[in-house]
Amino acid sequence: MVIVMKLGATEQQIEHVVDRLRQVGLREHISEGEERTLIGAIGDERVLQTVPLEALSGVERVIPVLAPYKLASREFQSEDTVIGISGGVNGVEIGGKRVVVMAGPCAVESAEQIITIAGLVKQAGAVILRGGAYKPRTGPYSFQGLGDDGLVLLAAARKQTGLPVITEVMTLEDIDLVGGYTDVFQIGARNMQNFMLLKGVGQTKKPVMLKRGMSATIEEFLLAAEYILSQGNTRVMLCERGIRTFETYTRNTLDINAVPALKALTHLPVIVDPSHGTGRRELVPAVSRAAIAAGADGLLMEVHHDPENSLTGDGAQSLLPDQFSQLMEQLERIAQAVGRSLLPQKEVASAFTGGWSGTLT
Amino acid sequence: MVIVMKLGATEQQIEHVVDRLRQVGLREHISEGEERTLIGAIGDERVLQTVPLEALSGVERVIPVLAPYKLASREFQSEDTVIGISGGVNGVEIGGKRVVVMAGPCAVESAEQIITIAGLVKQAGAVILRGGAYKPRTGPYSFQGLGDDGLVLLAAARKQTGLPVITEVMTLEDIDLVGGYTDVFQIGARNMQNFMLLKGVGQTKKPVMLKRGMSATIEEFLLAAEYILSQGNTRVMLCERGIRTFETYTRNTLDINAVPALKALTHLPVIVDPSHGTGRRELVPAVSRAAIAAGADGLLMEVHHDPENSLTGDGAQSLLPDQFSQLMEQLERIAQAVGRSLLPQKEVASAFTGGWSGTLT
Amino acid sequence: MVIVMKLGATEQQIEHVVDRLRQVGLREHISEGEERTLIGAIGDERVLQTVPLEALSGVERVIPVLAPYKLASREFQSEDTVIGISGGVNGVEIGGKRVVVMAGPCAVESAEQIITIAGLVKQAGAVILRGGAYKPRTGPYSFQGLGDDGLVLLAAARKQTGLPVITEVMTLEDIDLVGGYTDVFQIGARNMQNFMLLKGVGQTKKPVMLKRGMSATIEEFLLAAEYILSQGNTRVMLCERGIRTFETYTRNTLDINAVPALKALTHLPVIVDPSHGTGRRELVPAVSRAAIAAGADGLLMEVHHDPENSLTGDGAQSLLPDQFSQLMEQLERIAQAVGRSLLPQKEVASAFTGGWSGTLT
Amino acid sequence: MVIVMKLGATEQQIEHVVDRLRQVGLREHISEGEERTLIGAIGDERVLQTVPLEALSGVERVIPVLAPYKLASREFQSEDTVIGISGGVNGVEIGGKRVVVMAGPCAVESAEQIITIAGLVKQAGAVILRGGAYKPRTGPYSFQGLGDDGLVLLAAARKQTGLPVITEVMTLEDIDLVGGYTDVFQIGARNMQNFMLLKGVGQTKKPVMLKRGMSATIEEFLLAAEYILSQGNTRVMLCERGIRTFETYTRNTLDINAVPALKALTHLPVIVDPSHGTGRRELVPAVSRAAIAAGADGLLMEVHHDPENSLTGDGAQSLLPDQFSQLMEQLERIAQAVGRSLLPQKEVASAFTGGWSGTLT
Repeated sequence: MVIVMKLGATEQQIEHVVDRLRQVGLREHISEGEERTLIGAIGDERVLQTVPLEALSGVERVIPVLAPYKLASREFQSEDTVIGISGGVNGVEIGGKRVVVMAGPCAVESAEQIITIAGLVKQAGAVILRGGAYKPRTGPYSFQGLGDDGLVLLAAARKQTGLPVITEVMTLEDIDLVGGYTDVFQIGARNMQNFMLLKGVGQTKKPVMLKRGMSATIEEFLLAAEYILSQGNTRVMLCERGIRTFETYTRNTLDINAVPALKALTHLPVIVDPSHGTGRRELVPAVSRAAIAAGADGLLMEVHHDPENSLTGDGAQSLLPDQFSQLMEQLERIAQAVGRSLLPQKEVASAFTGGWSGTLT
Repeated sequence: MVIVMKLGATEQQIEHVVDRLRQVGLREHISEGEERTLIGAIGDERVLQTVPLEALSGVERVIPVLAPYKLASREFQSEDTVIGISGGVNGVEIGGKRVVVMAGPCAVESAEQIITIAGLVKQAGAVILRGGAYKPRTGPYSFQGLGDDGLVLLAAARKQTGLPVITEVMTLEDIDLVGGYTDVFQIGARNMQNFMLLKGVGQTKKPVMLKRGMSATIEEFLLAAEYILSQGNTRVMLCERGIRTFETYTRNTLDINAVPALKALTHLPVIVDPSHGTGRRELVPAVSRAAIAAGADGLLMEVHHDPENSLTGDGAQSLLPDQFSQLMEQLERIAQAVGRSLLPQKEVASAFTGGWSGTLT
Repeated sequence: MVIVMKLGATEQQIEHVVDRLRQVGLREHISEGEERTLIGAIGDERVLQTVPLEALSGVERVIPVLAPYKLASREFQSEDTVIGISGGVNGVEIGGKRVVVMAGPCAVESAEQIITIAGLVKQAGAVILRGGAYKPRTGPYSFQGLGDDGLVLLAAARKQTGLPVITEVMTLEDIDLVGGYTDVFQIGARNMQNFMLLKGVGQTKKPVMLKRGMSATIEEFLLAAEYILSQGNTRVMLCERGIRTFETYTRNTLDINAVPALKALTHLPVIVDPSHGTGRRELVPAVSRAAIAAGADGLLMEVHHDPENSLTGDGAQSLLPDQFSQLMEQLERIAQAVGRSLLPQKEVASAFTGGWSGTLT
Repeated sequence: MVIVMKLGATEQQIEHVVDRLRQVGLREHISEGEERTLIGAIGDERVLQTVPLEALSGVERVIPVLAPYKLASREFQSEDTVIGISGGVNGVEIGGKRVVVMAGPCAVESAEQIITIAGLVKQAGAVILRGGAYKPRTGPYSFQGLGDDGLVLLAAARKQTGLPVITEVMTLEDIDLVGGYTDVFQIGARNMQNFMLLKGVGQTKKPVMLKRGMSATIEEFLLAAEYILSQGNTRVMLCERGIRTFETYTRNTLDINAVPALKALTHLPVIVDPSHGTGRRELVPAVSRAAIAAGADGLLMEVHHDPENSLTGDGAQSLLPDQFSQLMEQLERIAQAVGRSLLPQKEVASAFTGGWSGTLT
């Protein structure tokens, strides 16, 4: 932490800042410039998160030096976290050499629908089934999901296909219920800063996929993950799903920079959602290829065999099963080009960037 | 709703769209342009929110004509909603001719703190006391509020000063508890699309102040209000608190345009939060004046008598009591200039824009 | 400037950074933290703008402490700059106690149009006439302005009404030509970083109104002003005209925070353009009032007596003459409430914020 | 164009709109809904760009149906534009099956520097040399490029290596001068809407690379291209270089969605600049791979053999020559995976997406 004092700050003001630093166990380092005095805080500056240094008189600006998250950082843990998913018939690992594809409908709509789609995506190479039981919708008059019934249908689809499932939990109260059915909790973008919910899933032992908030910075995204980690649940993966910008041609702007940035800053697996990240079916293949080329550990994709009759209105971003199958072949080629593999039956290629160092959690 | 067909869309595709419209009880109106065919949907297009028209083959784009919210709209109710607050010793109305100032600390920190500040802001003319018991914080290592104890202290401050109180409720589970103490529920910006929570407060009878999400459009803001209204609670007020943009000098960019835009689109009262909207104490006075000049029905402001020792780190945006008192005098002058009044002891000036038409709810 | 070294940076890397600082005449101040070493650069850090410190090995981050602009800063000149406009029959000063209104059509369209509007806005209290001769348009098929003929018509309107004029110069080549007609150069938002053009008007002696770029930060805005100032022209005023955000209901988001922020950071006058800042005629009155309440020194507004037949398509944001007259009365009341005045015939009220300290340039 | 009338619009208002449409040669199609009347304009709606329909009384909103650009659209020309570059010893084509890499320093700094780097990037497989002679810099105190001398040095580097060159032209006045040296004009992001400059290069016969403005929508980007095309120069390529968002970890947010979106909307070649798009050297490899996987026709990259001594301060985003060589090998693998090739000596793979249909211009 560097505290920049105002032009003309008095000795007394400087001393006062120093006193506050010492009170919380830090040491100071004063640097008198020609125009400004700077005070460096030495020690673990995270203790300063509750000290309103910017409110002290004579202080112009406070500049953090360290990242405000710890457990999520690469500095804390240098090897990649690899998350084993226990549900389903075959082991699936997220964050390892194999790129993982999670696919399925936006929402569970009926037994026939979810079982049909589950079969189709499994056949094409997906290893986890997605599908919403509870759907956060912008307006109250839209279809809100089947709720509890949706959970039961997801479990039925898992039984039928052997695919583990991921579904969203929207409120603290539902954690036990949803946890009774799902293999991975999804925290939606709108709930990325629902801190009660983050703490709640942090107290479970199930893997959690945390989606980036629509206008969350990378730092805020990692702090949200830190909420979960700080409760003891280390099986967290991050999902880039597009951010909100001025561009209106696409539903969101997929932040491809975030993929390598997150891989550098954190040891947690990084998933990309090209369906929400673009909002347009015709852009999903290109952006999916890009995500894997950029180093994503997995993809979350919407697939629907009958988007015209989808209840969620998100049909315009769902791939048809044929499109999905063709795309999976393309994605395998990209995965191979970066030294990984994607389709369950394929060999994992030899390392590309020289060194994959995951540790199973 | 206007459906724009792709260049070269077939007769069959057009008929298929028409069939879908008729299925949900709408009529169509077909307009064949030189390059594109347009299909207008006649009837209440809100029924189309569950029909994925954009997924139909041959459809290029779907353009809504009507706003997707109804109860919140001026068309539904032309007179201003005026919300009477029952707590406290004197009646307070929000949305009427008098501009309402809600002030207090970011968080309740101690009995001494909240009672001191409550007294000071009351003396300066505030009519509602704000203070957080539960605090949503970006990182898990920051002070998270006193929780239940904070609620008790707020109630004590109300008893002492006669000011009704407003405080945030963060999760569905806490609605009853918080409702037992507060006079107005605050829904924070991060929870603007926590739909479970919106429905929850919609089922109570207490007034709700809904803060705009950091990257919520005006339409999404009104749809979030619609969630509350649709559950039967009509006592909703909207709070513009700054949006996230590329600008980093200020914490947020206060969207002053949103004030007259909301007053035109909805009958609900509009509050402005200049403390979060700027994040800088020295900008709060100018932006507060601007808010009232633009037509805001109230202000939500942070005031702290000892920001240096505030636990939330938000001290840099809190006004000192003296600054607050001086500002209140300035604000009264602006309120008078737009035909309103602000300080409890002042006369309400004669109407300015020719016509104030609130109805008490 | 504070240089944050990477975790584990070597002695050699630190020495290398120190060498580079000394080479450009700065001194260093080293602070060894528990996790990171920080190096403070002592002296005028602006010399570092050509040294790529972030590219030095072992450097994690470089944090500027001083603003990168100088001539534009309040620290360089504490009193307000007041710009006297010499054209027109009566003296007009910008940046003084009187709030200045510049009004007129988006584009000059004909002699009849510009002379009619000039008369109407003068009568209502505007003191400068605006009107575009060259119009930057998003697409090549839109009306691009009358060009040179527009300049001639503007001069005719000035002669008729005695109002000085402001018009946009779009390219370096046209500076002499436009300067032969206009009293104030306008640099449009799209040209805020057309550095050749900035330098060009910086070499003239005419006042310049610089509009903020659509996505320019406040710092970039001031750096663009610095380009003009650094060429010797000190008569620069800044115009906030809305920034681009995710919100689509309004054409731009007027950044009201920028008004007090600029007044604090710079001595240059601050103008607000509510017409472009909102893009909607019905929002212009409220936002104009807000701008003056927030401390703006002037307004730039579009007024058209026949917007239906305007050639620019911007008619939807132009006020009708009657609306403009009524608004001017409201604005006078707000100006009085903040201790200023606006209408030419009115007394300037006694100081409000205690101290107006302009110096005529 | 669909004109949405206000609730309660009168017959007379509707007739008036119809009259205006007929005046410019369009026909109307009226659709009376239950709440609103819609009027469709039939014919080439581009004629309406100068009619301020939104200013007509009774009009609520005007919704364009057609894209406002024409020459740039895929509908106007379905086959890809392929641009042959005549400078240099070997033919280079942009927009064909081979992915093109343009590399070099941010700015030309000296003969030794540009010739050294030119040799290194050529050896690694780049086919065009980039380097700025005139540099647009945010502040006036930064290095502004060598100017005319830089052009001479670029030409010398071309002679030495046989690589054609690309460099930025910043103002109308310099077009002839710069055109005397460069093989491709670059229009920088800050000048994307410098319409005079666009028209100027549109009147030459040299290829132009147009960079996307920092906050330009895809539609505005294509309209800027349309300015050039409309002057007769059809050899235009588009460069996505990152947009400005709220994220501050990266310098810009590279909009990967824009790559397939542009490929769908226009026939012009699409280049990606990962150096500016990320602003961080360590993110450039991942994002470069992503760009090619997404379908980009080329990359523009900064390479410097001695970034520590670079004069532009952009050293932090320049690759070192070794990093660049290694990256080129990775990129070749990605190019092959999408059925293309990148290194000059490699075979172009067989088509991937089934059909490449360029036409040489």
